[in-house]
Amino acid sequence: MKIWRFVSIFFMIVCFIIGISAITQATDKLCPDNRPANWPSNWGKWGPDDEIGTLNYITPEIMKNTARLIKKGKVIGLAMNVTPGISPKFVGRQGLIRYMGPDGADFLVTRPLGNYSFTSSSITIEDHGSTHLDPLVHIWWGNCTYNNRPAPEIIKHFTGVTKCSSNAYIPKSFTRGVLIDVAKFLGKDYVDNIDSSPILTPEMIDKIAAAQGVTITPGTAVLIRTGWVKKWTGAPKPWGMADGEVGISCGIEKWLQEKEVSLIGADNVALEAIPATKECKEFYKVPFNPMHVGVLSMLGTPILEFLDLEELSADCAKDGVYEFAFSFAPFRYHNASGGLVSPTAIK
Amino acid sequence: MKIWRFVSIFFMIVCFIIGISAITQATDKLCPDNRPANWPSNWGKWGPDDEIGTLNYITPEIMKNTARLIKKGKVIGLAMNVTPGISPKFVGRQGLIRYMGPDGADFLVTRPLGNYSFTSSSITIEDHGSTHLDPLVHIWWGNCTYNNRPAPEIIKHFTGVTKCSSNAYIPKSFTRGVLIDVAKFLGKDYVDNIDSSPILTPEMIDKIAAAQGVTITPGTAVLIRTGWVKKWTGAPKPWGMADGEVGISCGIEKWLQEKEVSLIGADNVALEAIPATKECKEFYKVPFNPMHVGVLSMLGTPILEFLDLEELSADCAKDGVYEFAFSFAPFRYHNASGGLVSPTAIK
Amino acid sequence: MKIWRFVSIFFMIVCFIIGISAITQATDKLCPDNRPANWPSNWGKWGPDDEIGTLNYITPEIMKNTARLIKKGKVIGLAMNVTPGISPKFVGRQGLIRYMGPDGADFLVTRPLGNYSFTSSSITIEDHGSTHLDPLVHIWWGNCTYNNRPAPEIIKHFTGVTKCSSNAYIPKSFTRGVLIDVAKFLGKDYVDNIDSSPILTPEMIDKIAAAQGVTITPGTAVLIRTGWVKKWTGAPKPWGMADGEVGISCGIEKWLQEKEVSLIGADNVALEAIPATKECKEFYKVPFNPMHVGVLSMLGTPILEFLDLEELSADCAKDGVYEFAFSFAPFRYHNASGGLVSPTAIK
Amino acid sequence: MKIWRFVSIFFMIVCFIIGISAITQATDKLCPDNRPANWPSNWGKWGPDDEIGTLNYITPEIMKNTARLIKKGKVIGLAMNVTPGISPKFVGRQGLIRYMGPDGADFLVTRPLGNYSFTSSSITIEDHGSTHLDPLVHIWWGNCTYNNRPAPEIIKHFTGVTKCSSNAYIPKSFTRGVLIDVAKFLGKDYVDNIDSSPILTPEMIDKIAAAQGVTITPGTAVLIRTGWVKKWTGAPKPWGMADGEVGISCGIEKWLQEKEVSLIGADNVALEAIPATKECKEFYKVPFNPMHVGVLSMLGTPILEFLDLEELSADCAKDGVYEFAFSFAPFRYHNASGGLVSPTAIK
Repeated sequence: MKIWRFVSIFFMIVCFIIGISAITQATDKLCPDNRPANWPSNWGKWGPDDEIGTLNYITPEIMKNTARLIKKGKVIGLAMNVTPGISPKFVGRQGLIRYMGPDGADFLVTRPLGNYSFTSSSITIEDHGSTHLDPLVHIWWGNCTYNNRPAPEIIKHFTGVTKCSSNAYIPKSFTRGVLIDVAKFLGKDYVDNIDSSPILTPEMIDKIAAAQGVTITPGTAVLIRTGWVKKWTGAPKPWGMADGEVGISCGIEKWLQEKEVSLIGADNVALEAIPATKECKEFYKVPFNPMHVGVLSMLGTPILEFLDLEELSADCAKDGVYEFAFSFAPFRYHNASGGLVSPTAIK
Repeated sequence: MKIWRFVSIFFMIVCFIIGISAITQATDKLCPDNRPANWPSNWGKWGPDDEIGTLNYITPEIMKNTARLIKKGKVIGLAMNVTPGISPKFVGRQGLIRYMGPDGADFLVTRPLGNYSFTSSSITIEDHGSTHLDPLVHIWWGNCTYNNRPAPEIIKHFTGVTKCSSNAYIPKSFTRGVLIDVAKFLGKDYVDNIDSSPILTPEMIDKIAAAQGVTITPGTAVLIRTGWVKKWTGAPKPWGMADGEVGISCGIEKWLQEKEVSLIGADNVALEAIPATKECKEFYKVPFNPMHVGVLSMLGTPILEFLDLEELSADCAKDGVYEFAFSFAPFRYHNASGGLVSPTAIK
Repeated sequence: MKIWRFVSIFFMIVCFIIGISAITQATDKLCPDNRPANWPSNWGKWGPDDEIGTLNYITPEIMKNTARLIKKGKVIGLAMNVTPGISPKFVGRQGLIRYMGPDGADFLVTRPLGNYSFTSSSITIEDHGSTHLDPLVHIWWGNCTYNNRPAPEIIKHFTGVTKCSSNAYIPKSFTRGVLIDVAKFLGKDYVDNIDSSPILTPEMIDKIAAAQGVTITPGTAVLIRTGWVKKWTGAPKPWGMADGEVGISCGIEKWLQEKEVSLIGADNVALEAIPATKECKEFYKVPFNPMHVGVLSMLGTPILEFLDLEELSADCAKDGVYEFAFSFAPFRYHNASGGLVSPTAIK
Repeated sequence: MKIWRFVSIFFMIVCFIIGISAITQATDKLCPDNRPANWPSNWGKWGPDDEIGTLNYITPEIMKNTARLIKKGKVIGLAMNVTPGISPKFVGRQGLIRYMGPDGADFLVTRPLGNYSFTSSSITIEDHGSTHLDPLVHIWWGNCTYNNRPAPEIIKHFTGVTKCSSNAYIPKSFTRGVLIDVAKFLGKDYVDNIDSSPILTPEMIDKIAAAQGVTITPGTAVLIRTGWVKKWTGAPKPWGMADGEVGISCGIEKWLQEKEVSLIGADNVALEAIPATKECKEFYKVPFNPMHVGVLSMLGTPILEFLDLEELSADCAKDGVYEFAFSFAPFRYHNASGGLVSPTAIK
């Protein structure tokens, strides 16, 4: 009979726990930290209230040093020149739509305001539809976003993204940038053969950096030129997962952590290797884009996509200087879920 | 009879000229330069192909000197936190509309992609609907835009703004900025009484600059804090011309030219005094906003509107330093008719 | 010891049930029918698969009889002439925005296609932003929509409204319509004094119908003219709950069921009395708009809002005929959550 | 000397006329009627103020007769089920975009309004982007729209289409409709081989009508099923001119005038044969779509595009009745440049 008692009490406790936890799960504790223990992570590193992740590496000291990189007085724009109906876009996205306002002809023919004439337009665009910064909550795994915040609590229909919005990046939007010119150093052959070798390893990046004569110091923003944007410009068809791209993959996390990289961007759609390797997808238990889990959500490293690095590449090749001041304050709207941005390299 | 001959020949010539000129006007020569001779102007100063006006004052030398202003390593955002339905907007404009994408609840309830979840939004906004740079062609007088280009040729429905787009500002988007803190130095009384004294004269600006210990050197971007944004924040009603605002007016042109100001902005809707004086409107022969003709179109000085200068004001008051590096690359889309921007002061 | 066994087994079962039900609640059984028993309801009346509610009253026989009402050959439009920036709209809604395409001036000045010219526009609007039909799932109580379908299963971010979309109304969009001209029969004084007497009772409707010489036969669409649209036209400010309106309230449900009304509409924002009575809000346990729960969601009676009944009123007053063929097929887009519509009365 | 006087006076007059006319041309007389004399035209037929063209054929008598066609009590929707990202669209158009509002999951997770929950969406679409009626001013030749109105005067950026808007069709939106089932009667082979025989001649239409046992009586709306919509459904790529379609062409005008057809529509993009014949394009002196000049602009016959006639086709095949009541009131917004519509056949 004692066994019965034990068994029944045991079951009672188990059932009670199941019941409570199930109720809890549906209401309060939306975000239990059930991530695999072997995932690299910076959660908690800058306290429970942190919203900017590795941008914390950008100290006042680094900003001051960054200013010293401005040696010839030249600003180079790094934003894609988004052209309605022509610019590359992720399949399913609408891209930028221009609704033209009153134009020269309108005011030539009728003059409602006398000599006074004006023009302006409306645009509609996804906040990830052109050159943009991913906020740390753009991608999450299970129900938990960066730093263990439950997604249903901070990403809501009526309010937008109330924590870790891309607006939080503005106070850190000036740091040292380094160009890693993959397309130039590994060459067109490499870039074109994305099926056989789409992955940029830390070793390759180190090799290119060394060849370029730059080091990745703490707080640096790493900008990778894969040549993708050149390939897609003028090809007015949406880009899909099947099209693939050269990019980073599993194994980069440790390198990013050791180098204390603040931000990482590229001139392509998603920064990371597409298709991702089977191992990498399995490691992060997602169907695609594992680096968006590993880098953005776990390390808290903002990602910059759709850069146009062509002019910067030419300039760096000319003067041999692959570091620069990098300014990247995103367009600000309340609780933004993506940071449309016109970043610049200042040399 | 000789008189008849003369008269008739004279009339023939006159009629012929009228006929030809009328035809011409309707087809080719859309932009005769018929501006009054006494208007201050920089047209032609930087050649017939110039698209950036007084941003030409920003030389590589000035950019390098600007870098030296970064002494404490701090970035201060100057863009309005545009909030759908709440932020101030010019009457008739829609303001920013947020179309929220998938949110935390959506992925909690159904998991179409397994553990992988994401959020993003679409926005629609006028390119003059929040913090923005006016391109030099935003306003024009008669049919001629800055530097004598006919509006119907460069502002078209299908193509947008093909010359003098705000994109042209990107290579010059780093210069010395100076805050003129009118709201602090002249005080709340002044700002509030816009009916009795809405005009900011060059003398006032000089006086405030002196009190702040700054000088307006060539290439400087002048940012004026009138206190307007504070007044309107939280007042979710559209702003109309009848509401008025403190700002610059006729007489500032000479000062801007002498100081070689590169750009001028303010924390209000239209930079200039509203209502404008009768004299100023008559001088520029327009029903309102004469400074948009005089400063933007004639001098070619870009205007920055809807700035949020509150944090910058507090910081400058604290350290007593009213100059800073000013970074202002506008959001880039092909042939943009307005430059949405997230400007920053870097100190 | 037996008691222990009993107790423990009992607890096991209880815990098990709690556990399972809690899990279930969070996943499968999102929609337990926990509505108060005294609520009038048509759920289940037309089977578990029904998506159109009381439109089921519209039989082929009724459609054929409806055709006989077309006696003078006249079509009267009942849609509001939505004017951007002017038409009334519910506070928080953007209303219709027109993005004008190429116009006459554009083609006068340049002729990109030779003699060929064209115009068109883009519009953006909420599917409840002008004259529209509420689909039966527009409003729900708890988690259950009309006919006991769980909202999270049929109203999803990526797919829209997969059941009970307004598209389902199209095959029933022709029936007998009757105008109840409250504004004419009760007079302006009544309509204006919404604070003292905003409620339209079944008795009043019956009295007006009798005075007009019409009866409410099964399948009839009842259109109520309160005079609201006239009051708001030309008042370009958003309408808010505080503004109030004359309309139906608790007590109408039985009347609607007995008369077998197929659809009910009005020339105002929300059909129902605003503010609703305390009793009515308490009866349906909602903070406002109790009739949207009672009529739309419980009875399954589609609601038509923002009608313009002015021309119809004048015509009915003239010929004394308050019944007509009513055609109301909503604009169709896949899984629409609202039915923008241009309804007509054909007499 | 007298000759001199004559000559000079003559030249004075000539010059004066040239001068005045040139000025005039640029301002007032934007629309001289310089159409070739051999173009079929209904301009002026219903007076100078007419805005609806051949819809004038729809008399009260015809409407009353139309009611008699409602014999079995069945409504068949004829609008395309526009699906974002999937439905066919003309290349360059954005198509319908759905911005989903709050959904079931949102209200399951948080209950901001207690038990009260709601959904709605925003849509953005071109007013020619799905099933729609072309207003008579949609296409024009030179500067003159239907009935000799100058395009720059009635199609303006700020006001939209002030004359001949599709709203003008509402009072005539009920008439007899006839289906011409080309896809069924000529068969799939015909439809598929658009390169060899894309043109639908009046003779073919007459032959099909005869086979179907219907006649085209005055005021009839002719709806042509080419099978196109079936071909394109599920093909989520934009349709371009190069894709071609079966349709009407030059030579149909006389037939339309003689039959007094009120409206003509089809289940394709542009109603007319694409590519058009060289002769037809030369006859109307346009680079493409000559029927839009000949039928829409010259005859004043509204065109209905993107119909879905599949269900109607099946129903007509079943009961052998190819005539029906046709209800087609377009969605109304002020000065609309296109009539989005959900037309129905009522049998």
